[in-house]
Amino acid sequence: MSKDPDSSAAQAGPDAAQRAQKAILQRLYAPVATELAEVERQYRAELSSDDPYIANLLEYIEDYSGKKLRPALLLLAGKACGRVTPDHLTLGVVAEMLHTATLVHDDILDEALLRRKRASINALAGNEVSVLLGDHIFSHAFEVSLRCTTPLGAREFSRAMAKTCFGEIMQVHNRNNFELTEDQYFRIIEGKTAELYATSAMLGAAYAGANEAVAQAFYDYGMNLGRAFQIMDDLLDLLGEEALVGKTLGSDVEKGKPTLPLIHHLHAIAPAQRKASLEAARAGRRADLLPLLHGTGSFKYAAGVANRLVASAKSGLDVMAVNPLRDLLDEVADFVLAREA
Amino acid sequence: MSKDPDSSAAQAGPDAAQRAQKAILQRLYAPVATELAEVERQYRAELSSDDPYIANLLEYIEDYSGKKLRPALLLLAGKACGRVTPDHLTLGVVAEMLHTATLVHDDILDEALLRRKRASINALAGNEVSVLLGDHIFSHAFEVSLRCTTPLGAREFSRAMAKTCFGEIMQVHNRNNFELTEDQYFRIIEGKTAELYATSAMLGAAYAGANEAVAQAFYDYGMNLGRAFQIMDDLLDLLGEEALVGKTLGSDVEKGKPTLPLIHHLHAIAPAQRKASLEAARAGRRADLLPLLHGTGSFKYAAGVANRLVASAKSGLDVMAVNPLRDLLDEVADFVLAREA
Repeated sequence: MSKDPDSSAAQAGPDAAQRAQKAILQRLYAPVATELAEVERQYRAELSSDDPYIANLLEYIEDYSGKKLRPALLLLAGKACGRVTPDHLTLGVVAEMLHTATLVHDDILDEALLRRKRASINALAGNEVSVLLGDHIFSHAFEVSLRCTTPLGAREFSRAMAKTCFGEIMQVHNRNNFELTEDQYFRIIEGKTAELYATSAMLGAAYAGANEAVAQAFYDYGMNLGRAFQIMDDLLDLLGEEALVGKTLGSDVEKGKPTLPLIHHLHAIAPAQRKASLEAARAGRRADLLPLLHGTGSFKYAAGVANRLVASAKSGLDVMAVNPLRDLLDEVADFVLAREA
Repeated sequence: MSKDPDSSAAQAGPDAAQRAQKAILQRLYAPVATELAEVERQYRAELSSDDPYIANLLEYIEDYSGKKLRPALLLLAGKACGRVTPDHLTLGVVAEMLHTATLVHDDILDEALLRRKRASINALAGNEVSVLLGDHIFSHAFEVSLRCTTPLGAREFSRAMAKTCFGEIMQVHNRNNFELTEDQYFRIIEGKTAELYATSAMLGAAYAGANEAVAQAFYDYGMNLGRAFQIMDDLLDLLGEEALVGKTLGSDVEKGKPTLPLIHHLHAIAPAQRKASLEAARAGRRADLLPLLHGTGSFKYAAGVANRLVASAKSGLDVMAVNPLRDLLDEVADFVLAREA
């Protein structure tokens, strides 16, 4: 199984941008670099099997792991609250496994052909194997979570995953529902995206011995970060460059997924012109939608919402005394706005 | 959403046979009838949501729950070992939830249109929603398992589910592999079917305070029962009556699934005649295969293996003193051989 079939097609531009992004993350993750490397090692060890066929599939899937934002958040929150314990490492592995499992299943849902510039696992091994591999990773992640000294992590991650699935179901159910309100949109993304960030940050604080108010502040921090992250994802899907993002663009529009710029546009557009917008949205014509959404300032609006969420994420940590790790968490929040992929 | 769209089409024959089967189960489950009703009540309460769309889907899926063999085994094992505790009830709910989640995902894999004589959830709501609903039920089942007084149940069920998925992946991977050995077949069914029975029976014993040897004996009992159950499933798929079984028959053959009668046949048939058998198997022609498999005594052979497994299940419980509950567990094992659906 080739490791990077598309590398020859990659352009210098995207590569340079990705190197720049990697450098930023390296700096942000520096205080927990050793711990994150250990999480990475354990994560790869957990995705294994005696059976060569399954081992091969799991090895392929290991590379679904990208920015490792969830384990990084968990570790940074721990460090900010005083210490990183072996439980933090275990839960970092769990966070990344759960995220990977959702990606494996998402690719089925999205009928995606690409994931991180390589063939997605469903394109490679079929939907059936993808469903089962995702199920295996979910189950094994819960098994791993029980190695912690207390059941809090297992309890919170299983609760978070159950909520994540509800968010995703609501998203599918509201496909092509162009009457969706912002409130409904937020309930969807809080489930499907933000809950796992929030739970990771909260557990990082809690396993460092933080009190309930601080743990809650970290939960809220992760929730706002996750909301902003999803809105930026919406924007990237519409405005990004395919080579940079590494997946098929415009698929949200094609699949009729509700995104914040589109929701804003359909509420902001003059009634007489709404029909043309609806037609472009229903037909999934990204190229036609772009000027229409620019016309109502909908990209600016969505970016503004993401900005305010990041500001809330940062101010929420005021509950803690100022320390260098807290400053870094501010920068992590800012990174969500600046990322290009 | 209609509760039983096919009831008008059901025949008197199958209904009578199913009533008879229900009566047998009622007798076998009698010592834990109250507890099983409580498990059923809690199970339905767990499959709920504030969102009306999701609540509707979960309510529909509740009826995937059929014979409730896994929670019944767990409760009967507990009773046989001395007591049924609130943990048993919780774990009974978990066993049934995990089973339900695998059924939801299996229907996607099998592209099944029917489940228990009604439209399958994937036929009704699509593959995407089915993947996510299954994921939700898995995650929530793990969440529920953590309500127990000790983490053993959560740990064992998550381990069992991870193994179950591996078994299922191996099954998909070996589709249309007509060189499959019996050993490979058993590794597949031990994962995909027997592990959840074995773990349910073992946990029933362990949570009643049984020592390790007894808990292991119950694990083995469940494992042998599960193996036999799957072989009988293979036979029913080939020889059963659709109205009785309540799902599309011959789908194992059509999907190229390795079943014990076919594996036996392809090893027993004279080399000169093997080509015709292989062609019928590859083309998924159930009607052509039936006389061929009869010719090599392959149905009898598979039934014989199932019989011996049930005998092993029963003799394995010799580690316990004779008591009425132990006798009943013998009868539960016999039921696996006698069931018609």
